Amino acid sequence: MESATSGRLYKATTNRFVGRIGGNQEFVVDKDHEDCDGILSKAPDAAPGMLISQQLSLAGFAQLSLWKAALMEGVGSLLFIYITIWSNISPAVIPTAPTEQLGYFDNAAYLGPTTGALQNFILLTLFTFVFGVLTGAHLNPTITIGTFFARLTTLPRMVLYVSLQSFGVALAGYLVRAGYGTRDSKTGGCWLFTGGESQYALYPEGVGRAFSNEFMACLALLFLAFGVGLDPRQQKIIPPALSPFLVGLVLGVLSWAFGYSVYGYGGASMSPARCFGSFVGSHFPGWHWYHWVASISASIVHAVFYFMIPPGRSLVG
Amino acid sequence: MESATSGRLYKATTNRFVGRIGGNQEFVVDKDHEDCDGILSKAPDAAPGMLISQQLSLAGFAQLSLWKAALMEGVGSLLFIYITIWSNISPAVIPTAPTEQLGYFDNAAYLGPTTGALQNFILLTLFTFVFGVLTGAHLNPTITIGTFFARLTTLPRMVLYVSLQSFGVALAGYLVRAGYGTRDSKTGGCWLFTGGESQYALYPEGVGRAFSNEFMACLALLFLAFGVGLDPRQQKIIPPALSPFLVGLVLGVLSWAFGYSVYGYGGASMSPARCFGSFVGSHFPGWHWYHWVASISASIVHAVFYFMIPPGRSLVG
Amino acid sequence: MESATSGRLYKATTNRFVGRIGGNQEFVVDKDHEDCDGILSKAPDAAPGMLISQQLSLAGFAQLSLWKAALMEGVGSLLFIYITIWSNISPAVIPTAPTEQLGYFDNAAYLGPTTGALQNFILLTLFTFVFGVLTGAHLNPTITIGTFFARLTTLPRMVLYVSLQSFGVALAGYLVRAGYGTRDSKTGGCWLFTGGESQYALYPEGVGRAFSNEFMACLALLFLAFGVGLDPRQQKIIPPALSPFLVGLVLGVLSWAFGYSVYGYGGASMSPARCFGSFVGSHFPGWHWYHWVASISASIVHAVFYFMIPPGRSLVG
Amino acid sequence: MESATSGRLYKATTNRFVGRIGGNQEFVVDKDHEDCDGILSKAPDAAPGMLISQQLSLAGFAQLSLWKAALMEGVGSLLFIYITIWSNISPAVIPTAPTEQLGYFDNAAYLGPTTGALQNFILLTLFTFVFGVLTGAHLNPTITIGTFFARLTTLPRMVLYVSLQSFGVALAGYLVRAGYGTRDSKTGGCWLFTGGESQYALYPEGVGRAFSNEFMACLALLFLAFGVGLDPRQQKIIPPALSPFLVGLVLGVLSWAFGYSVYGYGGASMSPARCFGSFVGSHFPGWHWYHWVASISASIVHAVFYFMIPPGRSLVG
Repeated sequence: MESATSGRLYKATTNRFVGRIGGNQEFVVDKDHEDCDGILSKAPDAAPGMLISQQLSLAGFAQLSLWKAALMEGVGSLLFIYITIWSNISPAVIPTAPTEQLGYFDNAAYLGPTTGALQNFILLTLFTFVFGVLTGAHLNPTITIGTFFARLTTLPRMVLYVSLQSFGVALAGYLVRAGYGTRDSKTGGCWLFTGGESQYALYPEGVGRAFSNEFMACLALLFLAFGVGLDPRQQKIIPPALSPFLVGLVLGVLSWAFGYSVYGYGGASMSPARCFGSFVGSHFPGWHWYHWVASISASIVHAVFYFMIPPGRSLVG
Repeated sequence: MESATSGRLYKATTNRFVGRIGGNQEFVVDKDHEDCDGILSKAPDAAPGMLISQQLSLAGFAQLSLWKAALMEGVGSLLFIYITIWSNISPAVIPTAPTEQLGYFDNAAYLGPTTGALQNFILLTLFTFVFGVLTGAHLNPTITIGTFFARLTTLPRMVLYVSLQSFGVALAGYLVRAGYGTRDSKTGGCWLFTGGESQYALYPEGVGRAFSNEFMACLALLFLAFGVGLDPRQQKIIPPALSPFLVGLVLGVLSWAFGYSVYGYGGASMSPARCFGSFVGSHFPGWHWYHWVASISASIVHAVFYFMIPPGRSLVG
Repeated sequence: MESATSGRLYKATTNRFVGRIGGNQEFVVDKDHEDCDGILSKAPDAAPGMLISQQLSLAGFAQLSLWKAALMEGVGSLLFIYITIWSNISPAVIPTAPTEQLGYFDNAAYLGPTTGALQNFILLTLFTFVFGVLTGAHLNPTITIGTFFARLTTLPRMVLYVSLQSFGVALAGYLVRAGYGTRDSKTGGCWLFTGGESQYALYPEGVGRAFSNEFMACLALLFLAFGVGLDPRQQKIIPPALSPFLVGLVLGVLSWAFGYSVYGYGGASMSPARCFGSFVGSHFPGWHWYHWVASISASIVHAVFYFMIPPGRSLVG
Repeated sequence: MESATSGRLYKATTNRFVGRIGGNQEFVVDKDHEDCDGILSKAPDAAPGMLISQQLSLAGFAQLSLWKAALMEGVGSLLFIYITIWSNISPAVIPTAPTEQLGYFDNAAYLGPTTGALQNFILLTLFTFVFGVLTGAHLNPTITIGTFFARLTTLPRMVLYVSLQSFGVALAGYLVRAGYGTRDSKTGGCWLFTGGESQYALYPEGVGRAFSNEFMACLALLFLAFGVGLDPRQQKIIPPALSPFLVGLVLGVLSWAFGYSVYGYGGASMSPARCFGSFVGSHFPGWHWYHWVASISASIVHAVFYFMIPPGRSLVG
């Protein structure tokens, strides 16, 4: 164990993955260095500049190490989502409407996202630190799919991560239901009363506006999370001791800012798996599809910008 | 892309601009180094010590790179202001007056600035990190104009940045109105009920006191933001990984502390463009001028101190 | 005193202890370096890789330096627990039940853990900084016992630390009672109304569920605190200037997230000594045993994982 | 200005003062280096290890640089205290008593210190960064007097700093009164209703308990602020980029934790000058003396510990 304190050996004991959140592509393999070929042939996403043929190769499914990492993704998602569902659960009734004196502030529909947002920030920061060295700390299909379209993650890793994330959060949903004692619950970031009536209600007619809000939130999440967690230009500015805080702040502030302005709408999810887990523990609504469609659409739109204005290029000569 | 991980190339892919917020004048060109002449002739504000003739030269308008940076200022302002208007919007009615039991605390007029201040802190920190490497991350005419009078920004950059910031926030105002569904809204930091009557109301007679408060807030913003984000003495103390947090804290704590003490007044704006965007989406009041006059006046007063007690000098030998 | 600024001498004036929270096993002795034998024979837990025979040796009881460190553990526990009991004390009555409008939010049973959690975060961060250089900053038997089972702490240190922690918090409990003027009080994180009736109440029948929650909270505390404060893989990622913040965040967010979801239950303690001190100042309930049993059980379970998946090993080659 | 980016010249443009908060005695003069004699003869507190005869010498009163630094102490105190009085002002009536449902939480007497504490944290962090390079950023007589008794500050510096701090805060008190429009106000941290009656009221009989609380708060402030801001052992752990945050946290969390538990008492001040300024803008109560006596007593008690257990010594060999 004492040898782990050496910088050189440290790198050897860390997962090399260019799509790792929080390292700004720092803990990767140097492609020009010969003895790294062993790693790259097993995990092409251990270095930047992966070819499409490498990305789509199915060979990764045969790597035990990838299955181990996916398993840890599942464990991390289980723990992370268990806590964030448990601390944001409430009876499945619409909160009382805002009043004139206090606006939306002194109301469970505001206090819930506020509490949840701060906990999202802190918990995601901590889980990014602890799981970053193991799996890259995605813990959310939006991040995994976003890095897939930005060509930072192989197809096998994407399939395995999203599968195990979904499995982990489903288990979390079952465990919360067992502890809470009833299916009649709702979870912050995953509810929508489509028939609510109030001067504050903007979503009486359906889920179109919720989809639009979810898409904007996922897009902002990808822009900001890539900017602070995956942009190689930031390596000298944002050290790996800081980046997980910023990634946590991105999720926290967006789940807060998009959480309460409209009565009857519980705010943006940004992680379709978390709502999937929540619905496993309660009931599946007809509109769960928009969480997934918004997440995947935003990933594609983000990738278009990512290749148009690549992070390795500059504005001013 | 792999070469972007080299420290030397890193500097080459970053915008060199002495007025960049959060770098304490670190990411600049060395004037004594010959091969930098190309950059300095295009962008005289890429190094400290710009002459007045260079600052006022109109040649910058011919630089495509400056237009690109101004465009990104506009994009950043659009995103930043869209979120901060959306999460601070409320019906255009005066909140209920404070009560004896709870003072101003349990009231939308307090809870609004409190929420908005924390979001300002977090969002400005994140946008400063992400846009600092692109544009210098002003995102606010007070900062752009303040750096102009402190001779850290050229005239063309100042004109283009303020124009694109204003254009971006106007677009944000339109988008929020579309999503909110009505023009009858007010935005935190941009409202004032000039006829309100209460033991707490200090502004029954007009906008003079609001102007005074706005001026003090802009002045404190400039002193503190320059102290933590632009002061070259701080380079060894405040690394670029920390400075954006401090800049975010400056905006956050000032919008909080100046936000709620007086009934009927929604607090200091400190960014005239943000209120401009908010009024594009609602209605223009007769007193919008004071946001701009306070911002420009404070920039001039700050510049006087900046040249009287320059940051390159010390108090004790 | 001026020589203390030298890095080499700095190490000499700092307590070398592999179980120090916040250093990720950085401030330790190099076993292969000859002149360290003096330290290791006195304190076998000054380096990683301690043998079981060394760990269980009673020789440590003869070391004056260990008694001094334990004394400072007691002083730190006294101060830390005095403040956190004082700021979380309230009359010994069950709070009003949650309402439909505000859920559990606008209620002392929510506001208490929220306040206490933020103070836990800040205070534990500060005490970890200040007492880390003196004692390793455990300040909680769960941490001391957890490091004992993970073989990072000797038996004498464990016995002395837990004893002095308990003595210090008992003194804190007496002092708070003297200042508060009555024994009829309860402390956040240490109360449970076993007969409460409400749709939110999950614990009407006894303490079994409270024990389960306490065990889960202690287990999460150990996993996360070890991950951010004691994992040698994190040395390059989490410097000793950051680790105390993360340790503080772990305690803060867990005492928040496990604090309010169930009516009639004041939340997880995670430190059996703190509740012991609180009960010294009020009354001892029949169920205090579960705080200690949960803490010790979680320490053992955590240690099993710690040796199955040691932090020095990697998932991906 | 470009030469200010050099590390060596940086030190030359920074105030060298061993009692500077936030540098852990890092920005000081090396006594063994010859060409520093000029500085030390003018400012004996520019290096550790000052003799008592040097400390008490009145020669410092003839140094212009010390007067300049004291002037900036006054300017910093004026700005800092102006903001913290303005954002914590309220009518001079006792808040409504706590209720059974919400305890002390949903009450101005709790919400005030909570708000003020967070603002104290943020503002003191920012002012410590900005004024640390100029004056050492005391901004509070408790710190100046505490460093005097710990032999880190000369007598002339102590006299000038405390005088200018008091002058600055008196001016702040006048300015707040002008803006607030009436003398009938109270300021958080500086009020006490000695005749209040409630089950929560612990101070019906006088100011003795308030003095005791104030003394404990000042003592904790000195222990923690010295531990994170002035302890030379912490130089490798707490860089000057972090220390101001910790100092801000110390003030913030103590003004929070000691702020609300007792009905009728507005909490610990910890800065006698701030309450002095507040009373200049309202009315002087008969018990203002205890703020000063508690501050000075705590400074003396702290100094006794400081010399008994000096920071340059270790517990474990």
